[in-house]
Amino acid sequence: MSKLSEMGEKEAVRRILAEIAEKESSNAIGPGDDAAAVDMGFIYLVATTDLIAQSTHVLPGMTDWQIGWTVAAVNFSDVAAMGAKPIGLLVSMGLPKDLPSERLDEIVRGILDCCECAGGEMLGGDTKESPELSLSGTALGTVTKKGILLRKGAKKDDLLAVTGSLGLAAAGYQSIKNALGNKRAEKALMEPKPRVREGMSLSASGVVTSCMDISDGLASSVYALAEASHVSFEIDYAAIPVEKEVIEIARKVGMSPEELVLYYGGDYQLLFTLKPEGLSLLSSLLGNSFTVIGKAKAAGENTLIEGSRTIPLENRGYEHFRHG
Amino acid sequence: MSKLSEMGEKEAVRRILAEIAEKESSNAIGPGDDAAAVDMGFIYLVATTDLIAQSTHVLPGMTDWQIGWTVAAVNFSDVAAMGAKPIGLLVSMGLPKDLPSERLDEIVRGILDCCECAGGEMLGGDTKESPELSLSGTALGTVTKKGILLRKGAKKDDLLAVTGSLGLAAAGYQSIKNALGNKRAEKALMEPKPRVREGMSLSASGVVTSCMDISDGLASSVYALAEASHVSFEIDYAAIPVEKEVIEIARKVGMSPEELVLYYGGDYQLLFTLKPEGLSLLSSLLGNSFTVIGKAKAAGENTLIEGSRTIPLENRGYEHFRHG
Repeated sequence: MSKLSEMGEKEAVRRILAEIAEKESSNAIGPGDDAAAVDMGFIYLVATTDLIAQSTHVLPGMTDWQIGWTVAAVNFSDVAAMGAKPIGLLVSMGLPKDLPSERLDEIVRGILDCCECAGGEMLGGDTKESPELSLSGTALGTVTKKGILLRKGAKKDDLLAVTGSLGLAAAGYQSIKNALGNKRAEKALMEPKPRVREGMSLSASGVVTSCMDISDGLASSVYALAEASHVSFEIDYAAIPVEKEVIEIARKVGMSPEELVLYYGGDYQLLFTLKPEGLSLLSSLLGNSFTVIGKAKAAGENTLIEGSRTIPLENRGYEHFRHG
Repeated sequence: MSKLSEMGEKEAVRRILAEIAEKESSNAIGPGDDAAAVDMGFIYLVATTDLIAQSTHVLPGMTDWQIGWTVAAVNFSDVAAMGAKPIGLLVSMGLPKDLPSERLDEIVRGILDCCECAGGEMLGGDTKESPELSLSGTALGTVTKKGILLRKGAKKDDLLAVTGSLGLAAAGYQSIKNALGNKRAEKALMEPKPRVREGMSLSASGVVTSCMDISDGLASSVYALAEASHVSFEIDYAAIPVEKEVIEIARKVGMSPEELVLYYGGDYQLLFTLKPEGLSLLSSLLGNSFTVIGKAKAAGENTLIEGSRTIPLENRGYEHFRHG
């Protein structure tokens, strides 16, 4: 009898997906993408759910506002990864009996502020008594049929790109863990910004061939995109945008910056592929808010160029059940 | 500083709704109804979320299949209450580290079976480690703009009606608590059937003026409908369909059947009002699957006719945080 602690979250999800596939022939795209997409005739309705729980996801020092913000942000990030425009959010809250109402108010304010930032509405919720604080969000959005972004679709020779920079949230985690007090990195970790505007622009561009959000780290996302698209990727490490705080914090804690950039999550940036001829169009649309970091090749091993060496990219990242 | 245990779930929800109302002018109908309804142009998208947690909602003897079924059922029940046709369900699962994978499989089977029964798809999910089992569902559906059913809309002289019978789930609760072994009543409690087909028929009829599901008991639902519609209701207790198991179990445990029928929840039937002239049309559509139990009067006190007496209907029902 296997337990979740042995099989890990990905295996749990795989089993569930297999059971669903067996049971019904779905009209929906996904499960398996960042969000499900339901055919509504002329558009797709995009829907995704993600939960955070006090003991496993709430970091020391995290404010109630940040807890609320985060449950909204991680869900809107999945909507963004599909190229969709947010409709809104629903949140089920498991609340301890002795939770002061001021804490609930702050959590709700964080949720509402993130909804406003993402351009979605708080549509509804549910509160129930629970031994520990847990917040489960569901974000909804819409996207044109032509504009939907999926994990599959990348073709050989497409360019691989990311929005923003990588590793800052991981550096924030190390800052907290080692009491380094780097507020900027810690804030990046505890107030992730869903890349909604970027996702909608990628969708509208018509040149993006696949997309997902990087929640569990770049490497594991590259593997997911490669598998869904039946290609492999070659990443140029030197091209990845990394902020100086990441280098500094890595040095202070005796880790390599590569570890934070490649194998930790929390940045909630978008990882996507584009047709090479679409690069200048996308630059016009998005300015310097994205960076090409590699390219797609025929199916095979995912690799990393580090200086003059080309080495295999390891398939690991942050995963629940097995860590922490 | 007030705590949730003092203010109760309804007050927690009221505070959240007040904060939302302050923050934004919503394009959505609700919050405040059984589900939110988002204007999608030619239809409403209906969305609702509800969570169940091991320690507070899972009854002794409940199977994993029943736990999965229930999280789907309570959510589809809210979709049904809006008169909507289900699209599908998303479920976030907080899972203990040592949960055997066979238990997860059974939970998922329960969810999928209820989805099939309700005519919705399992659209997606999320699994996270959590100290106790908690399942948070979000159900989606669509309804025509003309056909949406809300809590408001009842007019003086409208008839008040319920689907099915009342009190059987409450009797099931007493059967478990007192080890009476009444399997039929216990099953009614642990496998609630969302009244999806009935809700869609009520919507299509054009004669139903308000609707909600009875999750926390008839009395508290009557108060909610009365408040939303600015009317009051007179209930004829003798007209309420009550199965013989309810009478028997009430007698065995020394309670009045009225207590189980009026002030306990769990039946997940629909409570609705209809125009008096629509009664025969609705009977043609729904057969004997609903019963008129009272009528709407001008705003004022909600009352109960018991034999020759007319007494006030008490405003109480099952509520989290304050009970159990």
